[in-house]
This record gives sequence, C-alpha cells and structure tokens, in this order.
Amino acid sequence: MADYQHIVVKREGDTVTITMNRAARRNSLSGDHLAELLDAFTEAGETDATGIVLAGEGPVFSAGHDFGDVAERDFDGVRELLELCTELMRTIQSVPQVVIARVHGLATAAGCQLVASCDLAVAAESAGFALPGGKGGWFCHTPAVPVARSVGRKRLMELALTGDPIDARTAEQWGLVNRVVPDADLDDAVADLLGRATRGSRASKALGKRTLYAQLDRPEEEAYDVALDVMARASQSDAAREGMAAFLNKRKPEWPE
Amino acid sequence: MADYQHIVVKREGDTVTITMNRAARRNSLSGDHLAELLDAFTEAGETDATGIVLAGEGPVFSAGHDFGDVAERDFDGVRELLELCTELMRTIQSVPQVVIARVHGLATAAGCQLVASCDLAVAAESAGFALPGGKGGWFCHTPAVPVARSVGRKRLMELALTGDPIDARTAEQWGLVNRVVPDADLDDAVADLLGRATRGSRASKALGKRTLYAQLDRPEEEAYDVALDVMARASQSDAAREGMAAFLNKRKPEWPE
Amino acid sequence: MADYQHIVVKREGDTVTITMNRAARRNSLSGDHLAELLDAFTEAGETDATGIVLAGEGPVFSAGHDFGDVAERDFDGVRELLELCTELMRTIQSVPQVVIARVHGLATAAGCQLVASCDLAVAAESAGFALPGGKGGWFCHTPAVPVARSVGRKRLMELALTGDPIDARTAEQWGLVNRVVPDADLDDAVADLLGRATRGSRASKALGKRTLYAQLDRPEEEAYDVALDVMARASQSDAAREGMAAFLNKRKPEWPE
Repeated sequence: MADYQHIVVKREGDTVTITMNRAARRNSLSGDHLAELLDAFTEAGETDATGIVLAGEGPVFSAGHDFGDVAERDFDGVRELLELCTELMRTIQSVPQVVIARVHGLATAAGCQLVASCDLAVAAESAGFALPGGKGGWFCHTPAVPVARSVGRKRLMELALTGDPIDARTAEQWGLVNRVVPDADLDDAVADLLGRATRGSRASKALGKRTLYAQLDRPEEEAYDVALDVMARASQSDAAREGMAAFLNKRKPEWPE
Repeated sequence: MADYQHIVVKREGDTVTITMNRAARRNSLSGDHLAELLDAFTEAGETDATGIVLAGEGPVFSAGHDFGDVAERDFDGVRELLELCTELMRTIQSVPQVVIARVHGLATAAGCQLVASCDLAVAAESAGFALPGGKGGWFCHTPAVPVARSVGRKRLMELALTGDPIDARTAEQWGLVNRVVPDADLDDAVADLLGRATRGSRASKALGKRTLYAQLDRPEEEAYDVALDVMARASQSDAAREGMAAFLNKRKPEWPE
Repeated sequence: MADYQHIVVKREGDTVTITMNRAARRNSLSGDHLAELLDAFTEAGETDATGIVLAGEGPVFSAGHDFGDVAERDFDGVRELLELCTELMRTIQSVPQVVIARVHGLATAAGCQLVASCDLAVAAESAGFALPGGKGGWFCHTPAVPVARSVGRKRLMELALTGDPIDARTAEQWGLVNRVVPDADLDDAVADLLGRATRGSRASKALGKRTLYAQLDRPEEEAYDVALDVMARASQSDAAREGMAAFLNKRKPEWPE
C-alpha cells in the first residue's frame, strides 16, 4: 500500500477498508486528502478484492471540503479541487468492487456526496446528513448531483435549500442509505450487507455494477439496449453457466472467479 | 382465444386475465412461455377490454427465465430470448389497457421485471421480490432496467447486488407495488384498484397511459412539449366534453367509448 | 402591486405571499386567473424578496383548470391556455426566490401540478391531492409531468389512472410535499421551512436554485459538468468567502446580499 498521510488503507480477506483519518479536521476533504482517496480507490480497484468499505475516524464521517484549503484558492484552483473531487466520486462508481459507506457520524456537503456516490450505505443511528451550503454561503451545487439521484425532488430541495441536517432514520426513509442500525452494530451491519453484495463471481458482480451505472440515467428504451446485449453475453460466462447448472442439478454453485 | 400451453387467458366483463400456468416450473419464462404471453398481451390489446390482469398459478408468481431453456442456448439464442422478453415488457406498457400485476408469491428476476413493467401492482402479504442474479451467477442486467425506474438508486443497488428478496411491505414502501393486502383479500384488492383505474372513457385512458410513458423518461421541458399538445387535443374529445358538461351541470358523467 | 381580480399579493418582510382568491370557483385556473398568477410571480421575481408563498383562500387550494372557461375554447384556445399554465409552472421554478406551496385543502389537476412545481410544499392534515382526469374524462396529461418527477412511477400511475385523491400523509410519504402538520399549525410550519430555506445570501440561494433545476433532469455526468463550473465560480463570491471566513474564525457569518 502507498504511504498515506490522511487515510488508512487496510485489506482483510476480500475487503479493502479505506478510512479517512483526519479526525482533528473532521475528515474534511482537502486537495491532498482527496488525492489520497482517489489514489486508494484506484489502487484497490486494481486488486482482486471484491468489496471496499469507506469509513471515517473521529466524531464526524466527513465535513466536506476543507475551507482552510478552499479559502486560499482562486477560481482555477477551486475548479481543480472540484475536478479531483468529482473524479473521486466517479471512481467509486467505476471500480469493479462493491463500495459501501460506513457512516458513523455527520456526513455533510461533499461528505454527504460521498455517501450518495457509494453503491451502498449503512448508517449508525447517531449519523446525520446535510448539504450545509444551503445555510447561505457556498451552495452545495456538486454534492447535490448524486443526492438528487438518491432522494425525491422535494426532499432534495429541502436538503439543498435549508442546509439543515436530517437524521439517519429520515435518510433511510428517503433512500439515501440502505440501513440504519444502533451504533454498536454498525460494523456487523456493514459486513453483513457487503458480504451479501459481494458473494458469487467477482467478474459477474463487476459487470453487473458497471451495467447498472451505464443504464441508470438513460431513457428506458436505451437502457434496455445497453442491458440486453450485456445480459446475452453474460449468459455464456462461466459464472452464469455454473449458476444454471447448480440450479438445474439442485446443488450449491461453486462460483468461478 | 388462441390455444395456449403455458398460459390461460380468460375474459370476464371488461377485464382480460392472463394467468401463467406453468406451476411445476415456477412459471419460469421459457421462450415458448414468453411467446405465448406476448401473443396474449398483443391480442388482448386489440380487444375492447379496458384492463388486463397478469397472474400466476401455483406457489410462485414467476421465477424468471427458465434455466433449462437458457442453458442450451448460445449467445445468439439467448439474445433472441431476451429480445422476446423485452418486447413483452414493452407491449405491457404499449397496450391501451391498464395492466395490473396480481402478485401472490415470489417474483424473481424477469418475474420481478414483469411486476415492475406493469402499470400497477397489488401484492399479497406473502409475496416477495428479488433480483437473484445478484447472488453471483447470471446477473439480472435487464430485470434491473424497469426496477431502477420504480425504486430509488440505493435500493436498486441492494436488490441487484445482493440478490436477496425483499418482502411485500418493503416493496410497497419502496414503490415497487401499489398495495399489499392479506393473501385472502388479493383478488378483491386487484379488482378494486383496476376498477378505479379503468373507469371512464376507454379512449381517454388509453391516450393517458400512452402519454405517461412518452413523457416519463424525458427532461421536464420536453415532457411538457409532449403532454401539452396531447392535452389540448384531448380537450376536444367526447370524453373531455362530457366530463366538463357533467361537472358544470352538476350531474354524473356518462362516459363515451 | 398590480390591481388583481383573482389573486391577492402581499409583501411582509422578505416574503411575498400570492393568494388565489377565487374561493367561490374553488380557485380554479381560468385564463385570467393564470395570467394574474404569472404576472404576480414574474413581478415578485424581480423584487428583492427572498421567498414566495403560494396560498389559496376558501375550502380548496385549487381545483385546476376552470371547466367553464375550457369548455368554450377550441383546440387553439385550449393550447393557448395550457401554454400559459406551463409558463406559470416554469416561472415558479425560474424566479430567484424560494417558492413554497401552503396547501390547506384539496389540490387537484393543475392545482396538484402547482404543488408539484413549487420548490417546497407544506400541507395541512386535511389537504388532499388528486389527478381527477383519471376518473375518465379529460386526462391530466400536463399535471402528470411535474408529479411524475416528484413521486415514484407506480404511484404516478395510480394517481393518474384512478383519479382518486391521496391524503396529506400519503403525499408526504410519497415525496409530493415536504411536511404535513395539523391545520392550526400550517402558517407556522410554512414560515419555519421558508425561513430556513431563504436565510443566508440571496444571490447564493438564487444561483443554487437555478443550478438545481439545471442539473436535475440530466444524466449524472452532464449534471456534474453544469454544477462543477457553477460551484467553482461560486467559491469566489462574497457569500462563499464570508461563510468560509466565519467558519474558520469560529464566528457567526454576516451574509452579504
């Protein structure tokens, strides 16, 4: 693993855990922190791991951009920072692994964007979610992009325009996170959901994730064009053949790579 | 009615009920079964019926593709099967009748896709819904297309990546079905919702359904372009004129065809 | 303020309240009524107000188009009416102010469309929502456009095809309104949500609202292209600079215009 300053990367079994480790700065996303996260996701994406957990140290999951960093940048500098941030969000969705957010505290602004961008998210009861630019300063224009694609329109407007936090149960009801559990059960719940989301053939899951993101934003007819061709090809894969053979022979499948 | 092997088609009053009748094969969707369903929907679409119920015999609503059939097909053969399946889904949305799924048991893979593709769906409490390709074999790429357009993004990811079933109450909460009722009340609930969805002018409903699907996937401005022109033309129809006259004269409308 | 016949426009502090005042006609949207609403929103949009409340007098929020007016129009006449109506919906979304619907009673057809088109909506417990064209006469093609973008697909189909009303709690659960409160608390709840949605820099909020609508309907990648550039430019604004400085210096921000 690379030598990181702001994050800790750990591999256990088939899971890579990337932990934001700037607790004193509320895991805010300075340019350096973003660059390390991007590097870690890119590197993990090239391994044979099947799942990636995104976690945070300290009282807060992530407070979003680091104002100490942003305040010193001009337009071009901020643009560069936001391009790095957007590339991180895209990489989370483009790596072949299933990426799950482990949200133990407040996730705000680009921190909330991280949660919305992960494939799955489990939150502790004490977590909260906000787009605080809505309080009247630097509006959360880019964080609102994936949040808009997770919650309904009126709820997006409320989050983005008020800047006020919603609690974890509300986030679950609105579809921003998959599961809310008592704080003490967070690690178990993350492991359980990730385990179920990563079992089976790694190649099958990777193609599945890629195709989901490829079809999601398109009109239904175009989405079918994309998915149909992939599904026909996938039917000839070792994973599909094994799944069907196991089903037809009433035995447990032995998934290939 | 045509002479079918895998389905039973029945007309009562203004409703055509198409029942999958391969209980021993869990109503799985072999090529022949799909072809019969497509034929039955196409034929029902040309009648003056106002509603179509899609139901299943036996313990399961539908288990999706028939692995016995798929396993023997090469890429071109599976492609052909999936094109047939997609044409069925599109036909459900393009017939002028309101189509309602009567889901009494498990609806998985392309069986879940059927539920997502129907205009409306009522489920028994014992029903369940899954995209089981997520367990690691043949990923449910095409079933995920209409499911993605019914539930939120995080929920789609959970269904598609884990392959695990959700129960009927969860499906209702996520917006995959309209109503969940005790098993004994399923037929009444289907009849009630379909009755309310089909009353009035058949021509008005048919144009309404067609325009809903035409505008759904477009940017809001384009959607208005589509809907505005249709609505202006519809204002001159017998149904609209009768509706307005009845309202203005405080009498019950007598809907034309 | 202009001299209106069908509406009352009032400014108090930073809020403009536009009240539909055709109680005897259930606040139905005749051409003249629509023209006054469009004029009032356009005019309010040019003021330095930060929020606009859309309210209604009498037992009903709005019953939608005025059949007495529509029934006398030919195709071109209805088209003109619907273009005016659509322009009103677009103006609600394009004015720089946050627009909130105060829904105290039934909001049906284009009245429901108004609620769906406002940025935010608070409803009294006794409110209800319907697309009554689904009962079989003049189908609610255009009202369904913004409703489709607020609630899930199956729920849209139910509203549009049955024409039956849903109650306020259901509307909240489906994401059509932000908040439901006892009737006696409606004004307080509207003031509270609008207050939180309008605090801070007016310029920041206006740019925020504009960018939300610009990115909402696009594929995620295009949405990022729009939002990223705006966010980088916004970082150099007085509002953003003040917000960051206040945060870094641990003081309360003093928002600029």
